[in-house]
Amino acid sequence: MLWKKNWAVGAVDRLISRRLTEKGPQQDIVLSSRIRLARNIATLPFPQVAGEKQLAEVVAQVKAASDLKGPWGKLQYHDLKDIGALDQELLVAKHLISPQLIQNNENRGLLLSPKEEISVMVNEEDHLRLQVLLPGLDLEAGWQLIDQLDDDLEAKLDFAFSQEHGYLTACPTNVGTGIRASVMVHLPAISMVNQIQQLIKGVMQVGLAVRGLYGEGTEVVGNIYQISNQVTLGRTEKEIIENINSVTRQIIEQEQQARQVLLTNAKAQIEDRIYRAYGILTQARLLNTQEAMELLSDLRLGVGLGLLTKVSAPQLNQLTVLAQPAAVQGIMNQELPPQNRDYYRAALLREKLEDK
Amino acid sequence: MLWKKNWAVGAVDRLISRRLTEKGPQQDIVLSSRIRLARNIATLPFPQVAGEKQLAEVVAQVKAASDLKGPWGKLQYHDLKDIGALDQELLVAKHLISPQLIQNNENRGLLLSPKEEISVMVNEEDHLRLQVLLPGLDLEAGWQLIDQLDDDLEAKLDFAFSQEHGYLTACPTNVGTGIRASVMVHLPAISMVNQIQQLIKGVMQVGLAVRGLYGEGTEVVGNIYQISNQVTLGRTEKEIIENINSVTRQIIEQEQQARQVLLTNAKAQIEDRIYRAYGILTQARLLNTQEAMELLSDLRLGVGLGLLTKVSAPQLNQLTVLAQPAAVQGIMNQELPPQNRDYYRAALLREKLEDK
Repeated sequence: MLWKKNWAVGAVDRLISRRLTEKGPQQDIVLSSRIRLARNIATLPFPQVAGEKQLAEVVAQVKAASDLKGPWGKLQYHDLKDIGALDQELLVAKHLISPQLIQNNENRGLLLSPKEEISVMVNEEDHLRLQVLLPGLDLEAGWQLIDQLDDDLEAKLDFAFSQEHGYLTACPTNVGTGIRASVMVHLPAISMVNQIQQLIKGVMQVGLAVRGLYGEGTEVVGNIYQISNQVTLGRTEKEIIENINSVTRQIIEQEQQARQVLLTNAKAQIEDRIYRAYGILTQARLLNTQEAMELLSDLRLGVGLGLLTKVSAPQLNQLTVLAQPAAVQGIMNQELPPQNRDYYRAALLREKLEDK
Repeated sequence: MLWKKNWAVGAVDRLISRRLTEKGPQQDIVLSSRIRLARNIATLPFPQVAGEKQLAEVVAQVKAASDLKGPWGKLQYHDLKDIGALDQELLVAKHLISPQLIQNNENRGLLLSPKEEISVMVNEEDHLRLQVLLPGLDLEAGWQLIDQLDDDLEAKLDFAFSQEHGYLTACPTNVGTGIRASVMVHLPAISMVNQIQQLIKGVMQVGLAVRGLYGEGTEVVGNIYQISNQVTLGRTEKEIIENINSVTRQIIEQEQQARQVLLTNAKAQIEDRIYRAYGILTQARLLNTQEAMELLSDLRLGVGLGLLTKVSAPQLNQLTVLAQPAAVQGIMNQELPPQNRDYYRAALLREKLEDK
């Protein structure tokens, strides 16, 4: 196909962190686990009130401290100015940086490990935002990694810390441990049996937040939800992680029960839905993000139920990123009107689903 | 698959007359051409008022006269009593006999040519209903065949004929030539551009009838219409056939124009629709007749536009019969509730679409 000439070589495979293409625990329901720590250098003002010289000083200190040995390999510093606009969008789509970071390129950047399971935003809301991102439900392993990274950085940097409040952060909601932990869960069966609102209510009652990861506003697309802690003050990191872990395990159980109900009551209908999704994804010539996400959700359910073996869970992680508008534009290396995005999205998804 | 064991061997290929699996003129838009003649034996009363002995006499005379040489090969007589109920339904689905014929098995039967382009119902509304069924738009060839068959039978049988009215028939609408000619046309583009009602009105104004071939009541399924003559009295066979032929050619032209409009204005959308249909037909696990017919209509459009080469027009003729409820039950050799029919229909369509 002629248009393939426009592809950035290997771009599709750069759409997802290498670590997320590997297998993870409970990956039939949990896409990924993420932990983020907010840290600031004591002697410098928070980014929002800092001058350029002070921001440059943060960058200099982080770069100097970044030569750390760990299971993550060698960390590399990337200045935002050296990253093109579409590649920046790709980093956002991959959840390695926030949309906020790329609003200003000046003295902003990030540290990245080779497999991208570790990323550190520099001069976003805080001086440092450390992040670990692993496939499946793996918060404990994630905590070990980010705790080691935090200790190693703290040995070289003077983090703002108060005996009374803990780590000081730009936004009061992060004060204390400065930790934000989250898991991305795929809950198609709970949605189909109409229990999702009840579940969200229950999760919020134990102090966690639930939000649709994709989709605009409150509309959830593709049945993917993010569960995260709300409060970072007054609890230890281990308590916060243990809380999310145990709630997630309950959600997994509920989703599995709902899947069994569906299999018992409507196996033919579920199988039909899954294979229609496969048929459309492998043949359609136009696919918008929302429909692609819904069809991928059906495939993921099929993989989880063992009804579909043509696709794998890590492959679906990649396709989920591929379905996003930024991803399509990044690969095609140009801004595209929606209709053209739909055309290329369909072509990319077809091509990747044919890869075995 | 276990359930395959239940299949009548070769049943799928018996779903359509062998002649209709061959190519025909204008077959991208015209599925088939059919001509039917109504004839009665002068010395015997019409079937509706005849006693069993008289009906048996009709059968005996037809059998005695049926050893005719012609391009159609050797005609064989089949007594309805020797044909199982589901096989009778299959003959109806193939349009070789009418639903009326199988309401009573006693002294009813049919003559069939090896490729089934020729069929003669015995003791339906009239003593003989001669039919020729050819692929594509081929009424003139059809007329030559059925005219020869009519002459050959008339040489052996005494047909009821009046100098004033022509051939006498049970129903006054068939009096005269006793001819009913029809074509089955596929008009998806005219439907998409919302010109179908206008077209139907125009066709009716020149004395022809238009009706949806499949679907219940007035609802048309799969964009397939039958165009046929209404009147048989006062016109010659050639005039009647020429009228349908020329109207059909105009309809073909209008459909082709509508297709060009769609290709010019919405090629990507049309291509998307065609390939989605292919994806669903090759992957779905449940398909009801109506949806299957609509998807097959999209495939047929794709073949006609040259956008889809994985399927052929004769193959689509076969799949269109396969989509009917009677066909699925005939192949599975049992009466099935609708949900099971949908399951087997989907399986059969998948299997046949994978045959290249």
